[in-house]
Amino acid sequence: MLSQQRLLTPGPTPIPDKVRLAMAAPMIHHRKPEFKAVYQETQKYLQQLFGTAQPVIPLSSSGTGAMTAAVINLFKPGETVLVAEAGKFGERWLEIAQSQGLDVVRLSKPWGEAIEAEDIRSALDAHPEASGVLVQISETSTGVMHPIRDIAAVTRERDVLLVADGISAVGISPCPMDEWGIDVLLTGSQKGLMVPPGLALIALSERAWKKAERQHTSCFYFDLLAERANGMKNQTNFTSPVSLIIGLNEALRIILDEGLEEVYKKQWALTQMTRTGVSLMGLDLLAPRHYAWGLTAVKLPEGLTASAITARMTKELGVTVSSGQAPMKENVIRVAHMGWVDWGDLAAALHALAYCLPGSPKGYLEPALEAYHAALREYPPQA
Amino acid sequence: MLSQQRLLTPGPTPIPDKVRLAMAAPMIHHRKPEFKAVYQETQKYLQQLFGTAQPVIPLSSSGTGAMTAAVINLFKPGETVLVAEAGKFGERWLEIAQSQGLDVVRLSKPWGEAIEAEDIRSALDAHPEASGVLVQISETSTGVMHPIRDIAAVTRERDVLLVADGISAVGISPCPMDEWGIDVLLTGSQKGLMVPPGLALIALSERAWKKAERQHTSCFYFDLLAERANGMKNQTNFTSPVSLIIGLNEALRIILDEGLEEVYKKQWALTQMTRTGVSLMGLDLLAPRHYAWGLTAVKLPEGLTASAITARMTKELGVTVSSGQAPMKENVIRVAHMGWVDWGDLAAALHALAYCLPGSPKGYLEPALEAYHAALREYPPQA
Repeated sequence: MLSQQRLLTPGPTPIPDKVRLAMAAPMIHHRKPEFKAVYQETQKYLQQLFGTAQPVIPLSSSGTGAMTAAVINLFKPGETVLVAEAGKFGERWLEIAQSQGLDVVRLSKPWGEAIEAEDIRSALDAHPEASGVLVQISETSTGVMHPIRDIAAVTRERDVLLVADGISAVGISPCPMDEWGIDVLLTGSQKGLMVPPGLALIALSERAWKKAERQHTSCFYFDLLAERANGMKNQTNFTSPVSLIIGLNEALRIILDEGLEEVYKKQWALTQMTRTGVSLMGLDLLAPRHYAWGLTAVKLPEGLTASAITARMTKELGVTVSSGQAPMKENVIRVAHMGWVDWGDLAAALHALAYCLPGSPKGYLEPALEAYHAALREYPPQA
Repeated sequence: MLSQQRLLTPGPTPIPDKVRLAMAAPMIHHRKPEFKAVYQETQKYLQQLFGTAQPVIPLSSSGTGAMTAAVINLFKPGETVLVAEAGKFGERWLEIAQSQGLDVVRLSKPWGEAIEAEDIRSALDAHPEASGVLVQISETSTGVMHPIRDIAAVTRERDVLLVADGISAVGISPCPMDEWGIDVLLTGSQKGLMVPPGLALIALSERAWKKAERQHTSCFYFDLLAERANGMKNQTNFTSPVSLIIGLNEALRIILDEGLEEVYKKQWALTQMTRTGVSLMGLDLLAPRHYAWGLTAVKLPEGLTASAITARMTKELGVTVSSGQAPMKENVIRVAHMGWVDWGDLAAALHALAYCLPGSPKGYLEPALEAYHAALREYPPQA
């Protein structure tokens, strides 16, 4: 009872009570009218969230399922794609593309840096045979945000599909796909959308659908054309993850009642709060310039071990954040501030982090809260 | 979505998820074995909580119901009782005693001060005809803790029953009734016990039961002898508030698993945190010396209005605390820190208060958190 349990990880994130209660309602059948009504309403909300006139397909899978679905529905073995890699999830694009037998042009940057639009342009100039670009919007392993709007400005002028992993971006920072010209936008339920894991969402642009039609995938499960056809009838191709979709319906109502722009403003302000707080603790930010709005990765000084610090934060103060990933596992801590997490939870997380650092740095908390309030006032950020 | 809703009022207090889920289980009948098993287990827990070998009677009522039950079961019209009054709930004792036709000796002190054991001794010396003392342990209107242990040391030497309103004390600060010699200890479900309102609990010492037997109350509803007889069969006299008792069972399991002493330690530390924080904001404490462990009342400077500040705290930052009561309604704010509330919630509450004060005072938050950690280390407090 000393400490509440506070979950500030980059997915799963805390579930709002309204969503938990909606998901606890009696089960309904996914081929019956009651479910179809929920599907139809959720579809309308999802189109607002994604900023698209195209259908948004729900898949009973993790986010990686949707990444896989994107690749196998749009690219044939032997086709060339450009993979933007500057973190663990960039590497995942690489693995998926290779597993589909694609010819991969790898565009890598050090972890913590962003792939810029100019990098993409140069790589596409050097590889005019490339028919797709696979990229993260928010690279969850580093807290970097690749500038997807600028990248889309490059790909939309060419016969190149831009496939964006928005798993830790959708519902967290703006990415209106039709307006910006993103060809594939996908996400998972367990981050900005405040729903348990197990549901992925994917939308294709008109030209992406045309390509999917031309080469109809042979994969039985992730058949987006079959899903689209079923979606017209407010159905999924196979058994729907019923309670997750009901939860999503409720969560999207919360988000849209608040207003998408208000949610992004909150996310921006929490990001400024975190960056101010950890900087005043004397920690370096892993992503100094292009940073995500849903999580902040900080570098630990030599000699500290992320897993030991995060374990102590949970054990002694009930605050759960994430260590780094892969090569940065022990020298990076990732504080997530996405979804159903507010300034109060984040203040607790910052205190827990400071408390568990050697010497327990001071002078970080009130300035962090001031940065939060200032960011709310000054939103939107200047480009 | 900007702010979580945080409830830091002196009852109702937030309900733990485990309790909410237990209360959401299918209904059971209060005369059947399944309920009796819950009653029996809860009774065992309640005796630990109250520190008594006597039964603890559950009543389907608010805390005021238990106060009424105490008076009408123990005192006949015309009998003399001493009422210790230094706040709104002291006044309530007065009203209840008067409504029962008792001859009331009123021992008053200014709001914010405690009734000391010596005050009680002098009053009893002056009124040897008094057969009872009615007092609060924690006076919720002022945040004062009357020194009940010392008061009991006075009453237990005499033929005088000490009736203690522990509504905002039981489960918050120690009050082992048998050890200290409290004759009646009563509380409500909605404060330290982390259960919704609607359930009161009352226990009588052996000598109090003897007196109740001698004068058997004529009140049909609050008949403690009938309740005790039913309690022997793990029943209540009338319909039990079933889900509240199930919730209480779960809440007491949480408390006793943690350990009573650990809970009191937490409460003590939250009190030190609050007192440090508000003092550094430049606010004066209403109870400078004898203070409760579950809520802190602070005085507002001239010109400020408690209802306006608390309304703004809720509206802008989602933090709900209480204004003062009766004559202190607008110049006192009461920050509760009882039950399912932790240092993180309290940090958010302190920030919300500072944010809504003129000039938004600085330098209060990290010292408050340091006071919290120091109090945990230094517990128990020196007398």
